[in-house]
Amino acid sequence: MTALHDEPRTDGNLLSPVRAGTPAERLTSDEAWLRAMLDAEAALARAQATLGILPHSAAATITRTAEAAKMAPGPIAVAAREHANPVVGLVGCLTRAVAEHDPQAAEYVHRGSTSQDILDTGTMIVARQTLTVIRDDLRRSSAALGELAGRYRDLPAAGRTLALHAVPTTFGLRVAGWRRLVMDAERRLSRVLAEGLPVSLGGAAGTLGGYLEYAAPEQRAEPGEFVSSLVAEFAHESGLCPQVLPWHALRTPVADLTSVLGFTAGALGKIAADVLTLSRSEIGEVAEPGPEGRGASSAMPHKRNPVLATMIRSAALQVPALVSGLNQCLTSEDERSAGAWHAEWSLLRDCLALSGGAAHTLVELSEGIEVHADRVRENLERTGDTVSSERVAAALAPRVGRARARELMTLCSAEAARTRSSLAQVLAKEPEVEEHFTPEQLARLCEAAGFTGAAAALVDGSLEQEAVADGG
Amino acid sequence: MTALHDEPRTDGNLLSPVRAGTPAERLTSDEAWLRAMLDAEAALARAQATLGILPHSAAATITRTAEAAKMAPGPIAVAAREHANPVVGLVGCLTRAVAEHDPQAAEYVHRGSTSQDILDTGTMIVARQTLTVIRDDLRRSSAALGELAGRYRDLPAAGRTLALHAVPTTFGLRVAGWRRLVMDAERRLSRVLAEGLPVSLGGAAGTLGGYLEYAAPEQRAEPGEFVSSLVAEFAHESGLCPQVLPWHALRTPVADLTSVLGFTAGALGKIAADVLTLSRSEIGEVAEPGPEGRGASSAMPHKRNPVLATMIRSAALQVPALVSGLNQCLTSEDERSAGAWHAEWSLLRDCLALSGGAAHTLVELSEGIEVHADRVRENLERTGDTVSSERVAAALAPRVGRARARELMTLCSAEAARTRSSLAQVLAKEPEVEEHFTPEQLARLCEAAGFTGAAAALVDGSLEQEAVADGG
Amino acid sequence: MTALHDEPRTDGNLLSPVRAGTPAERLTSDEAWLRAMLDAEAALARAQATLGILPHSAAATITRTAEAAKMAPGPIAVAAREHANPVVGLVGCLTRAVAEHDPQAAEYVHRGSTSQDILDTGTMIVARQTLTVIRDDLRRSSAALGELAGRYRDLPAAGRTLALHAVPTTFGLRVAGWRRLVMDAERRLSRVLAEGLPVSLGGAAGTLGGYLEYAAPEQRAEPGEFVSSLVAEFAHESGLCPQVLPWHALRTPVADLTSVLGFTAGALGKIAADVLTLSRSEIGEVAEPGPEGRGASSAMPHKRNPVLATMIRSAALQVPALVSGLNQCLTSEDERSAGAWHAEWSLLRDCLALSGGAAHTLVELSEGIEVHADRVRENLERTGDTVSSERVAAALAPRVGRARARELMTLCSAEAARTRSSLAQVLAKEPEVEEHFTPEQLARLCEAAGFTGAAAALVDGSLEQEAVADGG
Amino acid sequence: MTALHDEPRTDGNLLSPVRAGTPAERLTSDEAWLRAMLDAEAALARAQATLGILPHSAAATITRTAEAAKMAPGPIAVAAREHANPVVGLVGCLTRAVAEHDPQAAEYVHRGSTSQDILDTGTMIVARQTLTVIRDDLRRSSAALGELAGRYRDLPAAGRTLALHAVPTTFGLRVAGWRRLVMDAERRLSRVLAEGLPVSLGGAAGTLGGYLEYAAPEQRAEPGEFVSSLVAEFAHESGLCPQVLPWHALRTPVADLTSVLGFTAGALGKIAADVLTLSRSEIGEVAEPGPEGRGASSAMPHKRNPVLATMIRSAALQVPALVSGLNQCLTSEDERSAGAWHAEWSLLRDCLALSGGAAHTLVELSEGIEVHADRVRENLERTGDTVSSERVAAALAPRVGRARARELMTLCSAEAARTRSSLAQVLAKEPEVEEHFTPEQLARLCEAAGFTGAAAALVDGSLEQEAVADGG
Repeated sequence: MTALHDEPRTDGNLLSPVRAGTPAERLTSDEAWLRAMLDAEAALARAQATLGILPHSAAATITRTAEAAKMAPGPIAVAAREHANPVVGLVGCLTRAVAEHDPQAAEYVHRGSTSQDILDTGTMIVARQTLTVIRDDLRRSSAALGELAGRYRDLPAAGRTLALHAVPTTFGLRVAGWRRLVMDAERRLSRVLAEGLPVSLGGAAGTLGGYLEYAAPEQRAEPGEFVSSLVAEFAHESGLCPQVLPWHALRTPVADLTSVLGFTAGALGKIAADVLTLSRSEIGEVAEPGPEGRGASSAMPHKRNPVLATMIRSAALQVPALVSGLNQCLTSEDERSAGAWHAEWSLLRDCLALSGGAAHTLVELSEGIEVHADRVRENLERTGDTVSSERVAAALAPRVGRARARELMTLCSAEAARTRSSLAQVLAKEPEVEEHFTPEQLARLCEAAGFTGAAAALVDGSLEQEAVADGG
Repeated sequence: MTALHDEPRTDGNLLSPVRAGTPAERLTSDEAWLRAMLDAEAALARAQATLGILPHSAAATITRTAEAAKMAPGPIAVAAREHANPVVGLVGCLTRAVAEHDPQAAEYVHRGSTSQDILDTGTMIVARQTLTVIRDDLRRSSAALGELAGRYRDLPAAGRTLALHAVPTTFGLRVAGWRRLVMDAERRLSRVLAEGLPVSLGGAAGTLGGYLEYAAPEQRAEPGEFVSSLVAEFAHESGLCPQVLPWHALRTPVADLTSVLGFTAGALGKIAADVLTLSRSEIGEVAEPGPEGRGASSAMPHKRNPVLATMIRSAALQVPALVSGLNQCLTSEDERSAGAWHAEWSLLRDCLALSGGAAHTLVELSEGIEVHADRVRENLERTGDTVSSERVAAALAPRVGRARARELMTLCSAEAARTRSSLAQVLAKEPEVEEHFTPEQLARLCEAAGFTGAAAALVDGSLEQEAVADGG
Repeated sequence: MTALHDEPRTDGNLLSPVRAGTPAERLTSDEAWLRAMLDAEAALARAQATLGILPHSAAATITRTAEAAKMAPGPIAVAAREHANPVVGLVGCLTRAVAEHDPQAAEYVHRGSTSQDILDTGTMIVARQTLTVIRDDLRRSSAALGELAGRYRDLPAAGRTLALHAVPTTFGLRVAGWRRLVMDAERRLSRVLAEGLPVSLGGAAGTLGGYLEYAAPEQRAEPGEFVSSLVAEFAHESGLCPQVLPWHALRTPVADLTSVLGFTAGALGKIAADVLTLSRSEIGEVAEPGPEGRGASSAMPHKRNPVLATMIRSAALQVPALVSGLNQCLTSEDERSAGAWHAEWSLLRDCLALSGGAAHTLVELSEGIEVHADRVRENLERTGDTVSSERVAAALAPRVGRARARELMTLCSAEAARTRSSLAQVLAKEPEVEEHFTPEQLARLCEAAGFTGAAAALVDGSLEQEAVADGG
Repeated sequence: MTALHDEPRTDGNLLSPVRAGTPAERLTSDEAWLRAMLDAEAALARAQATLGILPHSAAATITRTAEAAKMAPGPIAVAAREHANPVVGLVGCLTRAVAEHDPQAAEYVHRGSTSQDILDTGTMIVARQTLTVIRDDLRRSSAALGELAGRYRDLPAAGRTLALHAVPTTFGLRVAGWRRLVMDAERRLSRVLAEGLPVSLGGAAGTLGGYLEYAAPEQRAEPGEFVSSLVAEFAHESGLCPQVLPWHALRTPVADLTSVLGFTAGALGKIAADVLTLSRSEIGEVAEPGPEGRGASSAMPHKRNPVLATMIRSAALQVPALVSGLNQCLTSEDERSAGAWHAEWSLLRDCLALSGGAAHTLVELSEGIEVHADRVRENLERTGDTVSSERVAAALAPRVGRARARELMTLCSAEAARTRSSLAQVLAKEPEVEEHFTPEQLARLCEAAGFTGAAAALVDGSLEQEAVADGG
């Protein structure tokens, strides 16, 4: 016998601040999973009662008992080692609890069922609740970022590529991009919710044979109809949608969750990465909201750390790894896998909790982020007017040829950097250039703030389009 | 300077038989990517010509030259080290080739553009072509598996869970499950294709500033309209769909591809895992199609290895890992990442090629797989009638109570195994059982072939439902 | 402000039976991590006292208080959101607790330190303890498997490749391979332990500046010596080894742990995969130890599921994914990463707990596994003597040429299969064969049990070699 | 039959500039793998000749033919689909080529062998060569970085944590950390090389039965000795080391490679991440070496992109994903896996090529990186003297208590930021502070350049320690 230990072994996410204390943590706790599996048992009993397989009174007793049950996850978790799943223990507890009220009703608990039906259905109940909360958090962030994008629609900012200033953009366009990602995640989550997370009902090996055994003879004669009805009732009672086929070993519903959670974490990670960059001491374009004490360093009184973005990024680094584990589990052999199914549980829970924690954290970040417009302008000016060299090259090309234009710009940019003068001044002294442009024209061409392209229009388009989409 | 080597450095997938020689390999080769990027350049020139930015004749010359261009990927690949991307080299080659025909037209190559616009658009062209081929292969497999599921709809087979015989199912239901996964993958791929893979058009930092510089003054005055038109024309010319916002650092289109490719590989992996199990010498329910020499072992003349399933599984083990890398790249900082963008390319190519190779391999497997019905029956009989113990327990439970029924079944199953007699015989001698059932009733209850639950009906339902869906 | 929730949010591994109730679970719990971080604070105070930076009495008070402290992880976890790490909260609790005994000593808590020094050092303490337990479990398994390998050293068994019977091996050689993997893991773990897990001591940004500020002037004049002494004392007091350089952003120690844990889980996964295959109803060469009720199915009274192997495999499917996340975190920017450091914690904890749970589970499996020698023999016989075709081909080749030998064997194997006769019989009728061999010689050549190659010698060599290594 | 395509399907790493044209690319090409497998066949023949199993003349012919063979990988790759591995095709080609010279010698090609022995041994030959080159590149980088660390040993620089200036460090200490990581990688690689990559020799199912069949009767009588000799000779002839047990399904050697390659890529990724940050336009502490045209942007003439660091980071993002795939393949069922073995090949090749490409790229980066000491100083000054607040707090704590000291520092830091004055000035006006320190003392305490802790000593220690280690 494995020696078991009864010392405390709580995991309260001491090592995972991104989810600690968030709704997603609570909705994916052991308690929440137990609750969802009890709900699945009760829903199954009611569905069977509707089909005449067991008395309505027994279903009612089972439902009442399941709702009132206060089970400690610990002992069930440890007992799960005997069966490699926690359902056997849970069914035992529930049966005993029902028997205390009505020994006859206890006969009907988990009737014809199998552990996987309850665990998978419970998982879908947990996932539906958690996804709903994540979606709502994404909507709040999207609204906040939309407002922010509009406010800074026209603020010229350094566009950065491969770590360097490239050409100007606007701060609003950057934020519109963040919002776009949040909306992309929200839509993918909403679609999964709208298409419906299915109940799982297959019985011992996916034929629903056990359920059918308890059916009336006329129901057994029409197994297709019986099964459709049972699935429909079970879906109705558990708030999920019907399955197409028993999916014990066909893990599409888990894969769909995995995909959207992986995308959500990644999308939020991009925003976090940008916030961290823009928060850098040398850049300082944004600062996180700072209530009393938030982000204070234990050693350095002057710092206010970007802790929200840090936590979001920590989730974005973890979730893709978990996703790969879940995708490996798609290769699930037989009518029920010995291991691939079992590996899913923790991985999926962590994906839900981390993505959910990150989404919740983003709400606070996006609603409270401070933009330092002066630093945004200063940073853009730092590269001087060479940031517009692409634009000048575009103006020169039709006159001197593209290759020569590019050559001239490379030389003049280098000269401007060397002499610490403006590009416009250097260009004005260049014979091939001054032939075509006055110093005033050059100064205008080189003005960074004037070279934001279609940034403002893109912000408008993006905000409008969503508005239309939201209305549709 | 990095010492470069001109010895051969081909990767012809010697180490990746699952994709070697398949359409997906060809569609994702270096040549294919070069072709797609040249198509993107030509499409851009035509789109700009439509908007009056460059002469139609120049666009035509660029298009003709791009179509005729025969570029060796090798030197462009090595030159790509100077810029961390291959587009600069490709543009140089194309410009020179155009200049040979018409020096003036050469001025218009890549006008206002940026490497990422061309590489991302080229990637989407490659992805669209590859996805289309994968989808068609999945459809062929689905048809073959549908036929197979129908044929073995009623063949009783051992359902296996956690490696052991559980309760009977039918061979057809197992195959219907495989088909279901193939259809799930096909629908997710088709949806991505139907919703459209977008062009990428952002210019140096996502504002389309460079493109706008070359526009007429009245176009510049309405940048939103100009940009929408340019994007729409570019999409039209390249056979892709318009983007919502420039997505240089907003990688939703890549994430959508990643998700469906990850799912596809995983879904095919499940089928491969089952085929490998069912091919086992001790099980022998299926054999792979065996043309002359296929699967022959280099050492063992008597073997015919399940090489198709082996190759598919090898893809299913690789793709989830690649997917996690791609998901990590969603955290793409700034207006263009220094590294995360670059890490995507190979990973995505390998996902396309491996999933595509696996899908192509499945066509051959699913169209040619041999089912050995006699072995299917033998295997089911091997566990004797104890495979029906759940059913007998269900019949006993209302009479002796569920707990006692279970206890009796455990005892009698063990006794049957110990004495190598049938469960029905043992049960018939058990006083608590014989009180309720005659030996004939017990024999019927214990007949495995009679306990396939709703398997046949589920097969019918699954096949019909798809038919409806396909008609819709 | 983020809305926080005070409902229960325990994670007691309800969804992770492989670790539930195992020593590794306890050693990696939130409580264990708090304990280790408190130990790190106390060790730091004692080290500083030794160097004269604070009074010995203060260090003693801090140590006593830290040892006696009973902190609930929950509130510290939630408070960690304000700083993105739990150390600030922990230091606050500890300081208040010390102040209750001696306000002056409270001044010395966490002196000159930084959160990362405490968290990283605590992590290494946790890792050392957990690795030690895993190593011991691996040694127990290795001993059990060694015994098993010896016992079945000569039992001929079907060697299986690409799912099919290939040539004979012995059951003992298979088990010797399992043992080899366990030993490989044990050695890699032992090496990490022997080379020492380091303390982490860098202060705010890796210069130990804060620690140095509190030093005496003569210590400050020799910062190299001071730092070496402080590191050495800290290592001594915490039971770890000194660091080479502060490693806040140089995560080699974490990478070394990651590598051995990833390998351990994978090695155990191979054993689990084999046990699952050999447990299959059609194969039945092994059965898991079956105490009362273990592995009982909730629906099928006759089954005894291989739950130990199932749980081990579930860990082997999860850990590689977590490892990839940890490897991504090696790319840790700056003097302390904003996110990559934070992403490590949970991933590493789960690697420790899952690998540890799997190792603990393997002890029970390897000490109790039942080998059914009769089924091993039956399975080998099932392929008949064609399993020896490689051997006959080797005997024929020198006489008729390799190509012709192979051809003959392919024909005769097929003929034997078609006519359900033995290969020896078919060969005896083949003119080209009977010319060289008598029927008796053929019968001997075809006897599977005689074609186990060097299997027994390899078992001996493997067991001896380890004995030598263990003695050395 | 699968429709195959003869259009070009080269992968010349157009999409992977980090490896294009590097030695690792060449050493891991299809041609290199073919070459290594041919070397393995020749080494096996010579080893068998030494043991008297085949004539020395035949071994010599096989060796000469193998050395001279010019095989195109393409057809072998496509043919590999028939067997799920390329060795069958290679053996066929080699046998035919040998037969052209000496039909009798052709009988001895691949005698008693199996595909996996050749492929695995070939893989180890490739890995050994590639690791050697990577190690040498790491040594070059380590030397360059050591020189750089020494040169900037004392240059005060902003230490950055969670994206913000924390306390000062020196530029040399940062570089010493990079060097440390390179050395850590070098040592782990060197250890793998020193402990030896093993040949793979097991025959059809790991018993070496096939090899033994061709042995003389007295050799067969002592199979342990025979096998030891054959393995030793094979190792000798192929330049590898002997195996402990046949490892067809015991993938420790691959896991060891995976671990060091994963670590190497991650370690290099950290350096790249830092270089990218320090290259940022706003930070500008370093610039990459810039030969003519390097890093030039296709659109922006003024930019010089950090392309080397970008490419290195792209590898660091890919390799951890590949590592997770390889770790999944450790779960390799039976005596040879159907799929897990096959999935290893490409993943391992890509790990070798990407890590190798990154190491080669780092040589150029570390030997040519420019440090802009003026920008390093400017950045540090930017945060003003508040960067020393930890130091002042340490000086104040013994006088006013730690809590009050921290409070004062927080207030005064904020006041300094608000009034844009220096921290020293604000402190000098604070009664509780001026009571203890003169303005001169405060100015000295607040001088950032004086608060670099043990940075210089740590650089010295790190450089010395390595020197010792290298001598040992």
